[in-house]
Amino acid sequence: MRVDKGTQVYGATFSAWRAEAAEPWQAYTHHAFVEGLKDGTLPRAAYLNYLVQDYVFLIHFSRAWALAVTKAETVEEMRFGARIVDALLNEEIALHVATCAAEGIDEATLFAAPEAMENIAYTRYVLDAGHSGDFLDLLAALMPCVMGYGEIGLRLAAAKCDTPYADWISTYAGADYQQVCYEAGALLDAAILRRLGDVPQDSPRWAALSHRFATATRLEVSFWDMGLAG
Amino acid sequence: MRVDKGTQVYGATFSAWRAEAAEPWQAYTHHAFVEGLKDGTLPRAAYLNYLVQDYVFLIHFSRAWALAVTKAETVEEMRFGARIVDALLNEEIALHVATCAAEGIDEATLFAAPEAMENIAYTRYVLDAGHSGDFLDLLAALMPCVMGYGEIGLRLAAAKCDTPYADWISTYAGADYQQVCYEAGALLDAAILRRLGDVPQDSPRWAALSHRFATATRLEVSFWDMGLAG
Amino acid sequence: MRVDKGTQVYGATFSAWRAEAAEPWQAYTHHAFVEGLKDGTLPRAAYLNYLVQDYVFLIHFSRAWALAVTKAETVEEMRFGARIVDALLNEEIALHVATCAAEGIDEATLFAAPEAMENIAYTRYVLDAGHSGDFLDLLAALMPCVMGYGEIGLRLAAAKCDTPYADWISTYAGADYQQVCYEAGALLDAAILRRLGDVPQDSPRWAALSHRFATATRLEVSFWDMGLAG
Amino acid sequence: MRVDKGTQVYGATFSAWRAEAAEPWQAYTHHAFVEGLKDGTLPRAAYLNYLVQDYVFLIHFSRAWALAVTKAETVEEMRFGARIVDALLNEEIALHVATCAAEGIDEATLFAAPEAMENIAYTRYVLDAGHSGDFLDLLAALMPCVMGYGEIGLRLAAAKCDTPYADWISTYAGADYQQVCYEAGALLDAAILRRLGDVPQDSPRWAALSHRFATATRLEVSFWDMGLAG
Repeated sequence: MRVDKGTQVYGATFSAWRAEAAEPWQAYTHHAFVEGLKDGTLPRAAYLNYLVQDYVFLIHFSRAWALAVTKAETVEEMRFGARIVDALLNEEIALHVATCAAEGIDEATLFAAPEAMENIAYTRYVLDAGHSGDFLDLLAALMPCVMGYGEIGLRLAAAKCDTPYADWISTYAGADYQQVCYEAGALLDAAILRRLGDVPQDSPRWAALSHRFATATRLEVSFWDMGLAG
Repeated sequence: MRVDKGTQVYGATFSAWRAEAAEPWQAYTHHAFVEGLKDGTLPRAAYLNYLVQDYVFLIHFSRAWALAVTKAETVEEMRFGARIVDALLNEEIALHVATCAAEGIDEATLFAAPEAMENIAYTRYVLDAGHSGDFLDLLAALMPCVMGYGEIGLRLAAAKCDTPYADWISTYAGADYQQVCYEAGALLDAAILRRLGDVPQDSPRWAALSHRFATATRLEVSFWDMGLAG
Repeated sequence: MRVDKGTQVYGATFSAWRAEAAEPWQAYTHHAFVEGLKDGTLPRAAYLNYLVQDYVFLIHFSRAWALAVTKAETVEEMRFGARIVDALLNEEIALHVATCAAEGIDEATLFAAPEAMENIAYTRYVLDAGHSGDFLDLLAALMPCVMGYGEIGLRLAAAKCDTPYADWISTYAGADYQQVCYEAGALLDAAILRRLGDVPQDSPRWAALSHRFATATRLEVSFWDMGLAG
Repeated sequence: MRVDKGTQVYGATFSAWRAEAAEPWQAYTHHAFVEGLKDGTLPRAAYLNYLVQDYVFLIHFSRAWALAVTKAETVEEMRFGARIVDALLNEEIALHVATCAAEGIDEATLFAAPEAMENIAYTRYVLDAGHSGDFLDLLAALMPCVMGYGEIGLRLAAAKCDTPYADWISTYAGADYQQVCYEAGALLDAAILRRLGDVPQDSPRWAALSHRFATATRLEVSFWDMGLAG
């Protein structure tokens, strides 16, 4: 793939789509909400509102990765999807549950929380990408969340600010989450190679897939907007 | 069903769900956008922006009715769904295409129009209602658009204001569209009877179905908000 | 596409897949059931059993074409799918209903007929091709039925045998059905061009798509076997 | 639920559906293939053929449980589905892989094995139950395999015959697998209670759900037939 190897943090396909979505990617990964996490200026109420919505987001994101298992073409693709569903439902969600429990919000309340429109838009867009298309269409919509949080986590950890949101930062900057990003990038590259060949940018589908990635990235921006406003 | 017969304009189930979603239903059917259509104060630019988004909406709404065909349990349910898909793709959309063509916007441009987040939220929510649930879950999410436009059309036609949007009003107040609403209401009542029995409000599923109807109604409100802001 | 133009009866892609599935295609289109339709030696009971199963088949085939509408990427693809759903549910099925009614079997009985395993295998395979893959995966599984009946109809009509099954033959040899086959072939070629480019046989997906076509063709052979045994 | 408590091995709903499908259930759980496993008279070639097809079956069965995750309504339903997907893809399949590896058949060969029509019919029927219906429709189609193997395992273990298939028997008679059956039965009862209430047999949906269970049971019988013939 014709991508500068130096920027291939999480794989060649991600790097290419990230470059083609440069403007929304910057807006997403450098959003005021993110900067507020970094330097600690994010109001606690906004953070809690975000956590509640993000719990609901992760429920639907788990559904989308489960959908990926139903659309996989190799046993490796199936196993990776199953592993992510397990990690989301039993690990990543646990952080939200624990933090909200400390605030007196139990998991049943989280599960039943009214969804913000921005949340509905993002999660259902991802699910529809899977239902209307194939495994690649779904991956293109799943990647901005997976990789973006990895990238944000690394940048915020490197900033070493004194912030009450250090737990959030270390979760996504941590080795476990970074490993998920590397493997998701490798899965994506392999899935692309299998279906589009070794010059995927020449495929007629490339533009549509890149557009899906950009749309999901824009929906991340709206999600942060919602978090700030909350 | 325990519903005041006098209010059963489009069937008993619709009347019950409408009553349970009274607040968002009022906000939807008496939205400032609607009042602007009625008295002609809606800016032309807002109307055109709405028409473009509504074209894209109808594309996805057609997909959702096609999904209903795949989830039907009787040949009558299948045929009704197929008829609606045909009406949407070949008739209702034709109005949008013709109006926009007069403004120099061709159908290919409409089909490729960037979707507003409010549009994504609404259409993908409806589709996901179908994918995650059964025929009833999908119908509950489809009905606010079908019936609400019928109700708005009738009210605006009765107001007999001098407005440049008389074509829009007469489309939805017209006998053809009203007939669709009656038949959709009868289909819904029959589908409910078949799956929940003759006291559906006692079914454990009633609250969730009514909640889906209310959520789709709220997404209609956001859609008008988007239209006004456009 | 590198296909002998002379054989492109229903389009280049169909011709290529047909050639790659030569053995099952011959078994399907020259099955003993087909020969019995041609020369009239097919027992009436086998024909009626086939018609009942074929009614149920067409119900699920309609669902599969409706699924295609949900997975289309252009308004033309959507409209073609919607047209086929309408033709199946309101025209092709009408022949089965009328013939069976003359034998005292009403449509409700047809709809509720116990499905033979061969019927379940074929219809659900086609639906899963759509759910697990994209529009092309679904089309590849839909085409053997559409085109094969067209090809069989033409051959049997040309044989001009004296057979009680002349109505069946003239249905599929007729101009209306042949037109559907031509348009389905053109739709397929356009859908392939849009997603795989102008040398689709070089796409990594070609073999899997051709394999789907061959599998659906084999399931047609089983369907005739079931009809004969019935 | 009005079920004899004494027979509720794996829960009340399963017991009721099992009783309503008494004939195919007997044919499934006492099939000649099963008796051959019990007393060791099953030819090794038939067993290996079955293992290859069963590997492919479990791949699609995993997809169906992943689909269940996408259709769940509670986080408990989601977590149970995710756990089963993991157990199938990483544990139950491992037995097939190990046994086949000893015969010189690697996992890639298993994954690409041509599917018998009986296998296609069963797996795609289950998946379509999920796509066309809701979580309950899918569970009804999933249960015969889960519970039937548990019941067969217990009976064959109790027979204490000298058989080369002792590993197969102990897998399904073992505490781990039996625990899965108990929990699946509890999940099913809770899912039924949540959606149909505490007298589910009075629901209009009961007959259709029971029919799905019976159809999947019949498809198990065909699967054993295929295994014997292989």
